[in-house]
Amino acid sequence: MTLPARVQEPGTTQTVHPGEAGAGAVRRTVLPGGLRVITESMPTVRSAAFGIWAGIGSRDESPADAGASHYLEHVLFKGTRRRSALEISAAIDAVGGDLNAFTAKEYTCYYARVLDDDLPLAADVVSDMVASSVNRPEDVEAERGVILEEIHMRDDDPGDLIHDEFSIALYGDAPLGRPILGTVESINALTRDRIHGYYTRHYVPQNLVVAVAGNIDHDEVVRLVTRAFEDRLGGDDVPAAPRIDGDPVPAAPSVRVLDKDTEQAHVILGGVGVSRTDERRFALGVLNAALGGGMSSRLFQEIREKRGLAYSVYSYTSQYADTGVFGVYAGCQPGKVDEVLSICRDEIARIADQGIEGEELDRGKGQLRGAMVLGLEDSGSRMSRIGKSELVYESYLPIEEVLGRIEAVTPDDIRAVAQSVLAAPQALTVIGPFGDRDFTL
Amino acid sequence: MTLPARVQEPGTTQTVHPGEAGAGAVRRTVLPGGLRVITESMPTVRSAAFGIWAGIGSRDESPADAGASHYLEHVLFKGTRRRSALEISAAIDAVGGDLNAFTAKEYTCYYARVLDDDLPLAADVVSDMVASSVNRPEDVEAERGVILEEIHMRDDDPGDLIHDEFSIALYGDAPLGRPILGTVESINALTRDRIHGYYTRHYVPQNLVVAVAGNIDHDEVVRLVTRAFEDRLGGDDVPAAPRIDGDPVPAAPSVRVLDKDTEQAHVILGGVGVSRTDERRFALGVLNAALGGGMSSRLFQEIREKRGLAYSVYSYTSQYADTGVFGVYAGCQPGKVDEVLSICRDEIARIADQGIEGEELDRGKGQLRGAMVLGLEDSGSRMSRIGKSELVYESYLPIEEVLGRIEAVTPDDIRAVAQSVLAAPQALTVIGPFGDRDFTL
Repeated sequence: MTLPARVQEPGTTQTVHPGEAGAGAVRRTVLPGGLRVITESMPTVRSAAFGIWAGIGSRDESPADAGASHYLEHVLFKGTRRRSALEISAAIDAVGGDLNAFTAKEYTCYYARVLDDDLPLAADVVSDMVASSVNRPEDVEAERGVILEEIHMRDDDPGDLIHDEFSIALYGDAPLGRPILGTVESINALTRDRIHGYYTRHYVPQNLVVAVAGNIDHDEVVRLVTRAFEDRLGGDDVPAAPRIDGDPVPAAPSVRVLDKDTEQAHVILGGVGVSRTDERRFALGVLNAALGGGMSSRLFQEIREKRGLAYSVYSYTSQYADTGVFGVYAGCQPGKVDEVLSICRDEIARIADQGIEGEELDRGKGQLRGAMVLGLEDSGSRMSRIGKSELVYESYLPIEEVLGRIEAVTPDDIRAVAQSVLAAPQALTVIGPFGDRDFTL
Repeated sequence: MTLPARVQEPGTTQTVHPGEAGAGAVRRTVLPGGLRVITESMPTVRSAAFGIWAGIGSRDESPADAGASHYLEHVLFKGTRRRSALEISAAIDAVGGDLNAFTAKEYTCYYARVLDDDLPLAADVVSDMVASSVNRPEDVEAERGVILEEIHMRDDDPGDLIHDEFSIALYGDAPLGRPILGTVESINALTRDRIHGYYTRHYVPQNLVVAVAGNIDHDEVVRLVTRAFEDRLGGDDVPAAPRIDGDPVPAAPSVRVLDKDTEQAHVILGGVGVSRTDERRFALGVLNAALGGGMSSRLFQEIREKRGLAYSVYSYTSQYADTGVFGVYAGCQPGKVDEVLSICRDEIARIADQGIEGEELDRGKGQLRGAMVLGLEDSGSRMSRIGKSELVYESYLPIEEVLGRIEAVTPDDIRAVAQSVLAAPQALTVIGPFGDRDFTL
């Protein structure tokens, strides 16, 4: 039986999934101090993706730390005890690799995708950034300007801004409601010492997962990571700070209207979905595909195909540890926003009432299955899948098992999740030239 | 010797590139009527990408047709003699495939990426859309609203809008200067008959290339395409309308300022680059990587890393049949735009004067090489590469040869192309809250 990482003995390695004929084998080693290394072999590719996942995101921030996870992600590119910012980027650019990072609400990921021969280099550079960042005051200062520009760029793109506004509408002041980027005020208030303290507190081996996929050998990866992290594996075994976000359930239905001089109106209507361990997530995935996941979905057909009201219209779901989000987005003429909202409400109500079945159900399953299998030919996607699983589930669900769960979704499962998730949207956000016009849920 | 397609006899097949051990073989068949089918085998993947490339884009539009190529691309999803819009999208959604299209200045591409077993379905659906579109008046009408929303969405995103504005600044009224989307006025003026006429005139076998990559068999692909196009291969051999854009060289240096109430200022400074057959394109590619292509590039280091002035800053090149574009983009605080422009000008002048050499040259080559090789693990990228090559070069340049040309770039090549391309930027575009402030090149 495969053990979850938290009960796997440090210093041991286990095969989490055997794979087939040498391909797709997933193995995990827990190093002293609790650093987990998980790999997946893809012997038919020539690339390797090396990622480090930290179990820290905007959801772990107190109001005074708002934006610190993402700020820190930027600062980690600025220099280590051994490398300047230029040396970090030049090393990966020289081999034509792709070095990047992203911060989410519950985790932060740093990764490089390179040709397989360059894996030792990628492992050394990314590990060095994460394990030995010096966070110099002058670098924290320079990066403050960069992050303020990132915030301004988001503010100038209403199709991006509306997602942050919707989180506020749904979760209010809870950490899950706050934008990952922080605010101009919170970024201006963060000091080097706070950023550095955040780093030393959260970037501890127990809170990190190294995930590697591609044409790689597990034992070699473990050797590379052990060498790169050697100063940090001395059994300092500091547990990660616990998540501070206790009650992310929205208190009350909420409408948020942002008056902005845009050509288009942007709307999101939605509410709380399901958590990432909720068994209903497969049914909600199929439902989401049928409602607004593709070109054949109901919302696309009604709003775009038949009426030509929007260019971009879709539904989506997000999963977090103990909650989730479900939403419907559309961008349309400001004068058509009532018509578009009315169609969204009707389609949501109809599907909550009747569910989906027959061909539409099969198509929703096919969409989920195909998108998943097609996505897995890329070493970067495989790395993300195993890294995220390890960090957020502490276990690995084989692809065949996920496909089986999708296949097993019944019309009754769909109806049940539709009634509980869709029946009563809890939040509406609108951006556009609406002055002080009121909107109602 | 490999023949270019225009002299390959209809009804024959040739191996354009032998590949190695069954992988990477590229074969081309010219069907009666001149339809070309080019494939690349990737026996280690489970996917297949099926694309049809039409040699028609915004550059082929008269002022009265402005936006017609892109409008038509939308209409081709609306129904054929055999399928409704819903049947087109449902067929591909059901197998979890990715069906999409895009329109560029010199070509339009329709494609589906699916699991290899679903290739016959993908070939049938995409071929049907391209070969048998009915372009019903009511569908043309509904889609007009969608395209107007796409234009409005572009207008609301200044980081996207500035690229269209820069084309106008550089090429003015020439077709190459006009936005691919058309304008609100031109889209409102296009009739069903004009759109349909545009379709029958340009979507002729001689002007189409079918490109397929993945776990596929060339002979099977040829059978599938022959069956799907059977009505259209009766030797109607209509040549494509010639390109109407005679003289795309900018007449005079040009500055274009768009006053807009944005948080950020967006700027592009640049000029004419090199054409896609220009031997200097490899040197310009390496130069571009060093100037603004990655995190270790001069512009990124000076503007973002050292001074924290921008989140997004980069240089880029585009190639067309007989010309090209070179540009530098940055988004920054409106109050910092002069400082950012001054750094861009200095870096451009310095590199035009001194070129690059040594480690920086090697790094630029490494970046180009790595990005190219890493990109080729995806069946979609391979399909794009062979389809575009066939359509725009009428020949195939093997990957090894491209890598060899990159490797062969010398410091002298760099200096030569830097002096001719970079020395005198011909256009500047600025978007931001600048009222009627003047800017100079």
